[in-house]
Formats: sequence, C-alpha cells, structure tokens
Amino acid sequence: MIKTAVILAAGLGSRLKDKTKEIPKGFLEIGGCSLIQRSVEALLEAGIERIVIGTGYLNEVYESFAEHYPQIVCIKSDKYAVTSSMYTLWNMKSVLTDDFLLLESDLLYEKLALRCLLEDECRDVILSSGTTWSNDEVYIQASTNDMLESMSKQKDSLESIHSELVGISKVSADRYLMMCEAFEALGDERIDYEYIMVQTTKQKEFFVKKVDDLIWCEIDDEGHFERAKKYILPNITLKDTKRNILLNPGPATTTQSVKMAQVVPDICPREKEFGDLMESVSADLTEIVANCNDYTTILFGGSGTAAVEAVLSSVVPHEKKILIVNNGAYGERICQIAAAYEMPFIEFKSSALEPIDLVALEHCLQQSTNISHLAVIHNETTTGLLNDLTELGVLADRYGIELIVDAMSSYAAVPIDMERQHITYLVASSNKNVQGMAGIGFVIANKACLEKTQQIQPRNFYLNLYAQYDNFRNSHQMRFTPPVQTLYALKQAILETKEEGVSNRYARYSQSWHILTKALKKLGLPYLVDDAYHSKIITSINMPDGVDFNDLHDAMQQAGFTIYPGKVAEFNTFRVANIGDIDHKDIQRFVEVLNEYLRTVD
Amino acid sequence: MIKTAVILAAGLGSRLKDKTKEIPKGFLEIGGCSLIQRSVEALLEAGIERIVIGTGYLNEVYESFAEHYPQIVCIKSDKYAVTSSMYTLWNMKSVLTDDFLLLESDLLYEKLALRCLLEDECRDVILSSGTTWSNDEVYIQASTNDMLESMSKQKDSLESIHSELVGISKVSADRYLMMCEAFEALGDERIDYEYIMVQTTKQKEFFVKKVDDLIWCEIDDEGHFERAKKYILPNITLKDTKRNILLNPGPATTTQSVKMAQVVPDICPREKEFGDLMESVSADLTEIVANCNDYTTILFGGSGTAAVEAVLSSVVPHEKKILIVNNGAYGERICQIAAAYEMPFIEFKSSALEPIDLVALEHCLQQSTNISHLAVIHNETTTGLLNDLTELGVLADRYGIELIVDAMSSYAAVPIDMERQHITYLVASSNKNVQGMAGIGFVIANKACLEKTQQIQPRNFYLNLYAQYDNFRNSHQMRFTPPVQTLYALKQAILETKEEGVSNRYARYSQSWHILTKALKKLGLPYLVDDAYHSKIITSINMPDGVDFNDLHDAMQQAGFTIYPGKVAEFNTFRVANIGDIDHKDIQRFVEVLNEYLRTVD
Repeated sequence: MIKTAVILAAGLGSRLKDKTKEIPKGFLEIGGCSLIQRSVEALLEAGIERIVIGTGYLNEVYESFAEHYPQIVCIKSDKYAVTSSMYTLWNMKSVLTDDFLLLESDLLYEKLALRCLLEDECRDVILSSGTTWSNDEVYIQASTNDMLESMSKQKDSLESIHSELVGISKVSADRYLMMCEAFEALGDERIDYEYIMVQTTKQKEFFVKKVDDLIWCEIDDEGHFERAKKYILPNITLKDTKRNILLNPGPATTTQSVKMAQVVPDICPREKEFGDLMESVSADLTEIVANCNDYTTILFGGSGTAAVEAVLSSVVPHEKKILIVNNGAYGERICQIAAAYEMPFIEFKSSALEPIDLVALEHCLQQSTNISHLAVIHNETTTGLLNDLTELGVLADRYGIELIVDAMSSYAAVPIDMERQHITYLVASSNKNVQGMAGIGFVIANKACLEKTQQIQPRNFYLNLYAQYDNFRNSHQMRFTPPVQTLYALKQAILETKEEGVSNRYARYSQSWHILTKALKKLGLPYLVDDAYHSKIITSINMPDGVDFNDLHDAMQQAGFTIYPGKVAEFNTFRVANIGDIDHKDIQRFVEVLNEYLRTVD
Repeated sequence: MIKTAVILAAGLGSRLKDKTKEIPKGFLEIGGCSLIQRSVEALLEAGIERIVIGTGYLNEVYESFAEHYPQIVCIKSDKYAVTSSMYTLWNMKSVLTDDFLLLESDLLYEKLALRCLLEDECRDVILSSGTTWSNDEVYIQASTNDMLESMSKQKDSLESIHSELVGISKVSADRYLMMCEAFEALGDERIDYEYIMVQTTKQKEFFVKKVDDLIWCEIDDEGHFERAKKYILPNITLKDTKRNILLNPGPATTTQSVKMAQVVPDICPREKEFGDLMESVSADLTEIVANCNDYTTILFGGSGTAAVEAVLSSVVPHEKKILIVNNGAYGERICQIAAAYEMPFIEFKSSALEPIDLVALEHCLQQSTNISHLAVIHNETTTGLLNDLTELGVLADRYGIELIVDAMSSYAAVPIDMERQHITYLVASSNKNVQGMAGIGFVIANKACLEKTQQIQPRNFYLNLYAQYDNFRNSHQMRFTPPVQTLYALKQAILETKEEGVSNRYARYSQSWHILTKALKKLGLPYLVDDAYHSKIITSINMPDGVDFNDLHDAMQQAGFTIYPGKVAEFNTFRVANIGDIDHKDIQRFVEVLNEYLRTVD
C-alpha cells in the first residue's frame, strides 16, 4: 500500500498574473478551500501518511501551511526560477525511497482519481482522462494494451491520441531511480517530468489508466480558474459526496439518484400533483406484497415505530386482547406500545435464537379468550432471526384472528405474500430495504378489515389509522403535512426497487451475507442465529474477546464502514446489516478491514 | 409582452458528423430530452404562445415534432443547403409581424436566459455572457453603455471584447424589417444574421445584455456535445429547479441551498456526529425564543400536529383539566386531540376575527377547578388572527397555570420571548417560517416544568415528550429513527434564519403583506381580520363574487403561485401566506396576476 505522495509546487504560476503575486497557485481558493488543502485532505482520506511538497516560488506560504499537517514535509528547490518540474522532483531524492503518488499542485479533481490509482495493482500508472476541452491538454499516445508511448501538447506530433494526461501518477521506487538517472544523463534542467517519464518507457512499461469521465481540471490561467469554479467544482461536489457503507440496520446506504431526488421545486402537498405522487407511492408499496384491489397502503410522516403504533392503537377493539410474540427487542417494543395504551395483551416470550414453538403458541391461543390479533416481528433486527410468517398465518387463520406483522427489516427483500400468508396488517418504513430516506412509516392493510376499524373509538389522534386512510381516500391529501421531499426520494427508491426486482435484491443481499458469514467462520467469530432460521439481512456477531465495541466501531468507521451495537442483553455482540445500495465487494472489503483490525488487537 | 419566438433550425450540423445523419442537430438528446424540446418547453413556460421554426435540412423531423405542439409553425427554406441563417430568418417574413425572441436550434441554456430578455424593457436586446472557453466563441464588441458595435469569431478583428454572443436575442418588428432590408440590399444569401444585426446598429442602437455567469452552450461539434452532457447539463439542472412561489401557509418556498443541504453522505443517525447535529439544531431552535439554560427543544419525526399532540398528551396530569382557546380550526384541533385521549378539557370559544375577551377567559378560569394548563394558538392560520401571548401569559401566571402555545405559523417570524411571556411549552415545525423541509415537529419546553412530567403515566408511546427528552439527553440519539436529511436541511435553514435575523425576516414578511393588503383594498377584496390584530403572515380573503376557488387556484398556479383554500365555515374565502423565501417583488407580481385574472372574469 502506497503511503507517500509527492506534490510538485515550485512553479511561478505566471499565467495567472495578479492572482499568484502573493500566493503560489496551489493556494488559489475554489469553493472556500485552497487547491492544496483540498488535495492534501483527499490524500490523507485515501490513506496517504506522508506528503512531500516540492516548493520553490513563495515557499514560505507552503511552510506555514505545512505547520497544520504533521504529515507534510517541504523540500525547497533553490533553482525554481530557472528549472522545470523534473528538477523539483529530482531535488527530493534524499527523501523518496518508496513508491509514491505524484501530483501537480494546480489540480482540482474528484476523489476517484486517487482511488483508482491506489487500487490498481500495477506499481507504475499514469492517470488519464477523456477529452477535457481545456485548451491546455497534454495528449497521450499509448499502445493498444494501454502502455505509454509518448506525450505532447502538440496533437500533430503524436501518431494517435489515446487520452489526456491528468497530472496524477503512481511511481514506483525503481521508476523514480530510472527517471533521476535519465534526467542526470540528459543534463537539461529545464525539462518537464512528463518527458522523462516517456524516456523511461524504453526500460520498463508504464501503464496508462484511462478514466473516461473523470472530473478534473488543471488551473494554469484565469480561464481555467473561472471554468473550474463554474463547471468543475459543482460536478465534483456531486460526485464526491462520500460513499459511506452503512452496516447498521437502516437507514441504509442510498444511491446518488435517490439522494438527488430530494431536490425538487417547492410544492404545496395539498396540490393534486402531490396527491397523485402519494397515490402512486402507496400503490407501488402495496404491490410489493399484495394486490391493490384488496389491500392498501397508509402513509405516515414518522418513523417505522410510529406506523407500528398506528396499527396497534387503531385496529384492536377495546374489549379484545392482542397476543404478542416477543423474541427480541422489537417484539418487546410492541408490548410497550400496548402497555402505554393500557390495551389488554398477552406476551408470548420466545427464544431470541430459536424458531417460535408453534405448539406452545397455539396452546396460548386456546387458553385465552377474546384474542382478536396476533402481532409478530418478521425479521427480528436484534438477532436476524426470521420468524415463519406462513406458519403463523395458518395459525391465525385457523383461530379467526388477524395477523399484524412488523416487517420493518424484511419488507422489499424477503418475499412476502400477504394474502397467501394470511397477513392483515404489515408495517415497514421508507429507509431500510426500499433504500429511501428516513421519515415515512407505512401500514399495508387488508381493506375489508381496515373498514371495520372505523367503529373503534380512537385512542390517539395523529396515528389514527382509519382516519388517515379515510382522509386520503376522500381528499387525496394526507391529514397533516407530509415530509414532501422524503416522498419524492421514496418514489425514486421504489422505481429502483422495481428495476432491480425484490427477488434480485434479496439475492444481492444474500450474496453479501454469505461472504460475511463465511469470513466470520474463518475468523472464528460465531453469530447468534443458525443459518436455517436466519434472515440473511442482519447478523448479530459475538464480540471478539478483549475488544471493546466503541474501539471496533471507530476503527471500522475510519475505513468507511458503520457497524451497529448489539441489543441482546445476554450476549456481548455487535451487528452488521448487509442491506442498502452496497454489494458483496463492499462486504468483502469490510471483512478484510475487520480481519486486519482483529490481528492488530490480538 | 412578447408572444412569438423564432428558432433557426435549417442548418446541416455537418460538424457533428454521424450524429446528425438522420436527425437535425436540434434533436440531439441530452439528459433524455432533445435540445429542441427542452427549448420549446422553456419558451412555453416563459409565456411564449407561438413558435416559428425555420427548417431546412431534414425538415420532416421538425414537422412531425410540431404535431405535438399546436403552438409551433414550421417554415421551410428550400435553399437551406446553399444559404445561411439570415436567409432562413428572412424567409419567414410573411409570418413575422410582431416583436419576437430569436434563438438558434443548437443551444442548451438555463431558463434565466429567456427571463432576462423578456423582462428587459428594451425592445432590441442581444443576450451575451462571460467567457465560456467553448472553442467556438462569437465575441461581441460594445460601447461603454453596452450598445452593440461589432461581432466576430476573430478576437483580433475587434477593438475590445465586451462579452460572448449566446444566440438568443429579442428583436423588435422594426428591427426585423431593417434586417430584411439590409439583407436584400446586400444580395449575399450566405451571410449570417449576426452580421446583419451589426449592420442595423447604424440606424438604431442594439442593447447587449451581459449575464456574466449564465450557464449555456452551443453544440456545434462532438466536443461541445460531450462537454454539454458532462458539465453544462448538471449545472443547468441545479439552477433551473423551478422556483414556485408558495402562498400556502407552509411548507414554504425554500432556498436552493436548503434544498441542496439534503444531499449528504449517508449516515447512521445513531452516530455521535449526527447526535451533535441534532443537539446544535435543538439549541439553535431554543435560542430563537428562549435561553438554553432554562429551556430545551425536543425534536420529533412527524408534522407540527404530531408535536402538538406530544405536548397535550404528555404534560397534563391525569387528574387535571386543560382550558383550550378555540378561535379557529387549529384551536379546534387541540380540542380534538384532548378528546381523542379523553382528557378533561374546557373549550373556550372565541371569535374567529376579534381578539380574545380576556375578562371572559378569566371568568372561565375562576369558574372551573383543577385547571393546570391553558392552550392557545399564536397565529390562527385559518384567519391570520394574532392572539396576544403577553396578555395570555400574564393571566396564566396569575392563576399559576402553564401556558401551551401552538406557534406553528408565527415561530421564527413574530418575535416571542417564552420567559417574559410566561410560556411553558411552545410548538412549531421545520417547514414554515424557519424555511426548512417538512418532516420535523418540535416542542420548546421549560426544563423545570418538563422534568415534573416524568411522573405522569404516559398516554401513548411515540409521542411521549418526557421519554423523547430523557432519551436524547442520555444517549445523544432520538428514540426512533429521525428524518436524517430533513435535519440537515433544517440545520441549513436555521443558519439562513440566523443570517437574516428573525426581526428582519418579519420585516420582509410584513413588507410583502403591506403590498398584498394595499392591493386587496384597491381591488375591493376585503380580508377577514382587522389590521390591528393581524399576524401579517397569512391573510384570509373574501372570494370575489362569482369566482370559484378551483378556477382561481388553477389560474394562479399557471402563473407560478400556489394559493390556499379558506377554512372558516361562515365565510367564502381563499388564503394567501406571505412566508418563505419570497419577497415583496413576488407578491407584487402575484397581485398583478390576480388583478389581471379578476378583470378577465368580470
């Protein structure tokens, strides 16, 4: 892994005129941040630990900048006014012994530029891009297998144009030695490093990595500067929005398009256009698990728990009882909700790790009178235990009671068929497997059953399920101001869910899960639930001996992965959810990072 | 007002090679939409009613496109292969009798381009921009008072460079005649219209309107095409997000920066970083109306009503009564919430239009025993009636009861001082005068009083105020998944609120309101509440005789303004709120549009 970066920053920047009278051009500010600071922070974020800056013109500005970063060393070239970039690079000979990244100081670039060089297995790589129309292009001529042949600003002097030089390269220690030797042999101190690079290709091939749509620019004159501010920076900002790999059980990692879908013209949510949006969102959410003739989706502004509370408090008649299966924190939560409303309920405690004992559950049903509803979690987010809805539905149907399912962590991944599985109410939210933004909880209800709840004296106001349903049906509006932008994001997230298909999505999640659990087995880290009853969505893993959750969390966070604490009192665990816009490659990287961390604490 | 646009679209587009073999270059697709369609829709949106397209090469493609738009007429130039743009323009003589906008067919431009020409008072205007670095610039030479002197692609042939020609102009009928005459006199059919424009400046001045940072490009070759897709379109998309003027009482019109603040890297809301964000949001919201030592803000995912319900259901002891002032739909709603929980309450009905009779209210307090709370709306959104909190606070204080204020429509505009005004709980939401996105309701509470509510047996679960407070204080997390992106937007909205200052914001709103009410008086349209008790935030206006709300709404919507229906049973009204990121100029335009509409229905 490369740990050193070199920035060539000795030049006068004279084409920028007044702008570089008092500062070297690396200190030009774009979007409130100098080019050099942006570059240094991108390098550190990418894992670089030492940055050598070759300074010259106004070197004192770099010196005082370097005071803020212990990772920076400045090496001044005294001959900067009469030499060129290769001299500056050669001048650092004493401190450059390992492979390094080589950058020019006047670049504005997206972070992908560093990532794709660092991740490439070649030790010598020149980064290049498609056409930039910058008016100052250095063109690259390369072989059919992408090996450097020549570079020039004169198109005509090349036999063919492969791509444009960006000014960021990966240089091996050997290559650097070759370049220094070639430079010394040449005896011309005004030569550019690009020329010398081409010279060394006779001894050793130099791979050109072309990233067609890389967003970047060099700033050599005022035109470049204006163009950078106007066109390049906004695009970089959009593309560089950091990709965090969320391994917590939702809100999950979202796509860039779902993020951008929140940016819409302002609209009053009582407008017909917005009513149409909510209607289509509701229909789409229904169709994932049921048919729209017999079932409907009721949206609420609030979290998933709000929607669970809406069902609980709205559908159970006052004189009836609810039987609640508790095999984890979320089953427990349903009990808490029932208790808050002083609703009569029976808590059926079940193992956090083993399937529900259906015989015992049936016995419980037989023992009690007046039970109208059975409530259960589908995928217990505490452990990853997947309760068998089909069996529970058969039971509920046999006893003529309505089944309420909290499918928060399974909906839109694990296939569900409400009709076939005898589910009357199903609850989920916008921010888990649907891969939307948090802020919407929803209830999918059997319409015929829902209609009957109109008779029930309301227990609250905002979360009244029937009123919310009835009001939307009549007015095409939510009763209270809905989270407008979150609904637009949900619309986009649903579109992407339909494009992928729920079964493909579950296959993708499962693939990630298999990679995760395979690695856990190899690491000797047991996880709580047996594969046979596992949701393949969230895994509760035994905390390795002597490891503190917070330390582990922070180390993983440092590498871009957010893990989640355990929630089962008897076991010391941490949790990893493999949902959202991530795939098996991300999980593969995660297990490698985890593995590495555990070795360091061993 | 200009009603006609002319698009020059006869050319071969030969520099685009294969791309224009089967379609004219106006049909190049960028972002899923052809250049011509984007342009036509922008023109129609800007108020253009007739579009004349000068066709030639592959005219049949334009003909079939025109079938979708009754506003389009195509005029084919048979000599397109051997003539230039002025011939195409001259060839439309028979149909061009009024002033018109003149556009080239290969332009991608932000909508501002049309707006600033249409709004300029000059009849002849050439639109120009700052430097584009497009490699195909037409440079403009102009006088010190911005009058056209010359145009050329050769920089050196000009005495000075004023700006670059965009290719969109406003041409008066007189100017067009002059141009045709000059063209006929010249006798060269291969001349460009730009050359002829310069010729006519001898007879009549031609104003050059330079918009420095206009986002646009012309697409003449493949390089332009790639650059347009990569750099220009994303910037246009951001800048063109339609600016709707919402005159409904929230969600209000938001700034572009608040919209963009929703786009953030994914984050798990249980992370410390996000806890810090919520903490700073809470503190900032508190500081708008109180000091952070004695008061605190409790956030909920949900609408403002959810937060009202949280207070009502959480702070009134079970054995106590609440006195609710009802002088509009929102006071009524508080009664409904109390009723849903079967809380003992006394409804004090008060006129929807007149101030509260404090003597009668005090009498009511004296008559009843066991009243612990007084609840009131600050700015009744139904009418715009502003209840006097200071007087109500004095009363509450005198009787030792706690004052609950629903300040949904006044918070962050009308100044409030919770301590001085003896307010114990104040409720508002993210999407009104704070100018954020919908999805968060919040309660600002006196901490000492809030602490005492711990003793009260909860009436519900999600909206339990004390639990929400206590959990955040202890864990730095919301009890249930918060609307993450809405909180980032709220953070930005608060920043902008602080920058403007609440009193300046209220001054801005008030200025809009004065313009509105002055115009209403002139129009002879009375509004419900006397100026002396008016919030200056939302106005309930008598519906003009014979006008249907839906018709009025649709006509205003057409012009970009969203109005709101009335909500007082006895009066036939509509409502206009002057809140959000809009100002007196927007309201001025609205009253002009309203005036014009009312004249047409007279």
